[in-house]
Amino acid sequence: MSNVRLGVIGLGNMGTMTANYLLKGEIEGAELAAVCEMYPDRLKWAAGHFPSSVTGFDSIEAMLTSGSIDAVYIATPHFDHPAIAIRAFECGLHVLTEKPAGVYTKQVRQMNEAAARAGTVFGIMYNARTQPLYRKLRELVISGELGAIRRTNWIVTNWYRPQSYYDSGTWRGTWAGEGGGVLINQAPHQLDLWQWTIDMMPRRIRASCYFGKNRDIEVEDEVIAFAEYENGATGQLITSTGESPGTNRYEVVGDRGKLVIEDGNMTFWRLRVPESEFNRTSTDLFRQPECWKCDIPLPKQGKDGHLLTTQNFADAIRTGTPLIAPGEEGIKGLMLSNAMHLSTWTDRWVDLPIDEDLYLSHLEERMRTSRFKRSKDGAE
Amino acid sequence: MSNVRLGVIGLGNMGTMTANYLLKGEIEGAELAAVCEMYPDRLKWAAGHFPSSVTGFDSIEAMLTSGSIDAVYIATPHFDHPAIAIRAFECGLHVLTEKPAGVYTKQVRQMNEAAARAGTVFGIMYNARTQPLYRKLRELVISGELGAIRRTNWIVTNWYRPQSYYDSGTWRGTWAGEGGGVLINQAPHQLDLWQWTIDMMPRRIRASCYFGKNRDIEVEDEVIAFAEYENGATGQLITSTGESPGTNRYEVVGDRGKLVIEDGNMTFWRLRVPESEFNRTSTDLFRQPECWKCDIPLPKQGKDGHLLTTQNFADAIRTGTPLIAPGEEGIKGLMLSNAMHLSTWTDRWVDLPIDEDLYLSHLEERMRTSRFKRSKDGAE
Repeated sequence: MSNVRLGVIGLGNMGTMTANYLLKGEIEGAELAAVCEMYPDRLKWAAGHFPSSVTGFDSIEAMLTSGSIDAVYIATPHFDHPAIAIRAFECGLHVLTEKPAGVYTKQVRQMNEAAARAGTVFGIMYNARTQPLYRKLRELVISGELGAIRRTNWIVTNWYRPQSYYDSGTWRGTWAGEGGGVLINQAPHQLDLWQWTIDMMPRRIRASCYFGKNRDIEVEDEVIAFAEYENGATGQLITSTGESPGTNRYEVVGDRGKLVIEDGNMTFWRLRVPESEFNRTSTDLFRQPECWKCDIPLPKQGKDGHLLTTQNFADAIRTGTPLIAPGEEGIKGLMLSNAMHLSTWTDRWVDLPIDEDLYLSHLEERMRTSRFKRSKDGAE
Repeated sequence: MSNVRLGVIGLGNMGTMTANYLLKGEIEGAELAAVCEMYPDRLKWAAGHFPSSVTGFDSIEAMLTSGSIDAVYIATPHFDHPAIAIRAFECGLHVLTEKPAGVYTKQVRQMNEAAARAGTVFGIMYNARTQPLYRKLRELVISGELGAIRRTNWIVTNWYRPQSYYDSGTWRGTWAGEGGGVLINQAPHQLDLWQWTIDMMPRRIRASCYFGKNRDIEVEDEVIAFAEYENGATGQLITSTGESPGTNRYEVVGDRGKLVIEDGNMTFWRLRVPESEFNRTSTDLFRQPECWKCDIPLPKQGKDGHLLTTQNFADAIRTGTPLIAPGEEGIKGLMLSNAMHLSTWTDRWVDLPIDEDLYLSHLEERMRTSRFKRSKDGAE
């Protein structure tokens, strides 16, 4: 099969990086065919930087309808992901979008519907799914080594951003510009991994998002979230952009022991017999199951995760390889994020799946009064 | 000043241990003068075990009014602590009670009022306050080394109790017999330390207590609690009797860094300049304050904490030494515990101080329908 001709939309950090590794031939079966960039200076830079085989566009519509590409990689500000993706599907293209796929689940549902109609491949850049730590955790859960999941606790507060970061763009930290704070911009990978690693979504969420607590922003910079699962398990996720040095510690407790990921290491306290079985049979008032502390070996990650995810996308198009993160799954982490906002706004438990229209009405109210104003074409 | 003549009430594990170390002369300025035990076999054992200078009583009232003691140490089941303590104060005695002081804050308030009327010493056996780890943490907080407290996370799930433990007494795990589960019986020390180490009580609490989740009991065996503080700080406390091997990890984040207590060690990630100052002055979008990882040395604990607390009680009576845990502070940890129950029952935030009568009415409802029935004299 011939190479996938890829168009990169948005030449910021991620778009430029991706264009560069495509040009270097690092993705087998794919080639950089076009780039699209709305800022003239940046497009001019691209014309000088990329070979003539790469067509430059200043209009997304022109690129999508040019016939010169088979697929797009979307690396624009995230608010624009859904409209671009849906239009690309209408043009019969395959789509790989940066995370988050959208700002609210209703958008992502529409993206998936458009992909289904087009029958093309829809992938999400959840490149953290390629990390050996999280792949291994998921494998241990799915293979039953941990037993039924009982409780999770993920403290991921190492997303430090000073005020100068938020001040670097007028859209930053605003409802109209970003549609959320740490949940949308910094922690989407963890939100995705939180459900992917244990292979289940919560039944309901109770969260406290703190808006503009440590920074002069409209959106949340600290979140404390509870989750309850159908099987009785509970979970917490704590994230913040205001703490330094921060913590990244993920604890998962199952019927067969406890697993902790911290500092890039994975430790499994493995029970010789499942707790539930021990509990049924033990006659001693204070004894506990025999427990082995096991250091779990992790394979080395051969290549960068971003590159691996793009490779997987190309393989999915060419040979039907299953996607690492199919579009249908983009909704899951976003559902968690939306539920955390909604729980805070309503000061109540939020059942999943959430009421998408209720969420959207709350969000739109905040976007209307946001200090960031969008121009007609959606950009600043 | 002459020795404090101490009467021990209840010859279970704690009472017997305390009587024994008093007899061995391990508490300077105090002596074992009497013991009280309602079970005839146990009292008979005591008569053979203790010297004749120790008077044995089978009636608390008789011991309290005997004139042979100056102070009592109460080590009965905790439901009986308040009535015994109040009667002891009426008799002009000093009181050291095992934790928890009572089952609901209203009781402890009445105990404190009785102590104030008597003008005697009222101490609580919060012996965990003598541990170098927690003393050091409190010292670092109070001295300002950590800066303003931002967030705490205490996972204390190493209170494993199998079903056989709960089955070992009909009162165990029941509302009428214990008035609560892990919050009342296993974790009161951590509830006390949670507020004592950071020197502040929450403004409000939101909690999920899970009743009889992993064990066949009436009361809670798992708790996930949020706290919000007046200064904007947040906190979580997670506890369970159903997990093995469990975790005991206490993370405290301040403006000047992060401190973690785990596995008996204390690590302080110290920021060279406070985060708030760095945030005000930094112009770099992604930089963080310089951070030093410091292992904090801990003094060795010379003696057992229980013994140290009893010694402190004797010193308070004889020389006015400040108590490690005065009676007024017994209400704080219990207030947290009561607030966690109440938040679960009402499925709402609970402001502190709690509505004590509302709490009591909820508790009494559960005691009325409890499978454990108290006899007229309060015992089984």
